[in-house]
Amino acid sequence: MGLFSKDIKTFDDLFVHQLQDIYYAEKQLVNALPKMADKSTDPELKRGFMEHLGQTKGHIARLEQVFKMHNAEAKAVTCPAIDGIIKEANETAGEVEDKEVLDAALINAAQAVEHYEITRYGTLVAWAKRLGRNDCASILQQTLDEERATDQRLTKLAESKINAKAA
Amino acid sequence: MGLFSKDIKTFDDLFVHQLQDIYYAEKQLVNALPKMADKSTDPELKRGFMEHLGQTKGHIARLEQVFKMHNAEAKAVTCPAIDGIIKEANETAGEVEDKEVLDAALINAAQAVEHYEITRYGTLVAWAKRLGRNDCASILQQTLDEERATDQRLTKLAESKINAKAA
Repeated sequence: MGLFSKDIKTFDDLFVHQLQDIYYAEKQLVNALPKMADKSTDPELKRGFMEHLGQTKGHIARLEQVFKMHNAEAKAVTCPAIDGIIKEANETAGEVEDKEVLDAALINAAQAVEHYEITRYGTLVAWAKRLGRNDCASILQQTLDEERATDQRLTKLAESKINAKAA
Repeated sequence: MGLFSKDIKTFDDLFVHQLQDIYYAEKQLVNALPKMADKSTDPELKRGFMEHLGQTKGHIARLEQVFKMHNAEAKAVTCPAIDGIIKEANETAGEVEDKEVLDAALINAAQAVEHYEITRYGTLVAWAKRLGRNDCASILQQTLDEERATDQRLTKLAESKINAKAA
């Protein structure tokens, strides 16, 4: 896309492009989360990653519903941001020797993912409303709420246990 | 780093690594923000990018202060996450034809940057406290507060004006 033409002509095109970007990101996470669970040592953290995998599959289903409602193609467009966040998570994890320090690094990585999703879904909700698609906005809002809750759970887990074990 | 050895051995090493990662990210932003200002059309958005450039230079100075206080090397280590976020911002901007839609895309990109910084500084504050470095934590907290305020200003600008012009 975009080598010889500018494909985003309207605000609606931008909305669909952002949906396709986060659709790609969610699909990358379906691959990344089991690897993060494998690398983690703390059972609560491990379980958290696997629970979030289930949620992520639900987010993909919701995006497919929004694509359908909006008559847009459920297509994933490469999202260099999530690729970069996952690459950094893998690189940092590969540098860490101690298992408990690794758990702290993994939570940090997971929170970077959550914040990426929070910003994108936050924008998508605002854009959907502006486009008069309150029906799409309310579906996207459900995912946004889940991402925020996951981020808060990770903060709590880090501050109540994982950081103390790592230090 | 890290090809033949695991360089992060302790929680303190992880803290320093994360400082070096965000130091790189802030430096990349010093290059990226003037380009985002150039591409934007709305004068308030353009001014916002330039004001944030000034803040970003202050964040770099604060990081250098923390490195010094913690007797760590003020070195930037490549941060694939921020590289990915900036690459995605450039790619998307390159696809957008209409100037007012481009402004909406630029705010979306800027908020992804802010959220990346919010998650990293949030973690750094928690880690500094856990390491008994409340002095470093309070400096990092100042930057965290500024990043959060910038994100909120961008949301307000998007919702009060930019999205409406784009739609």
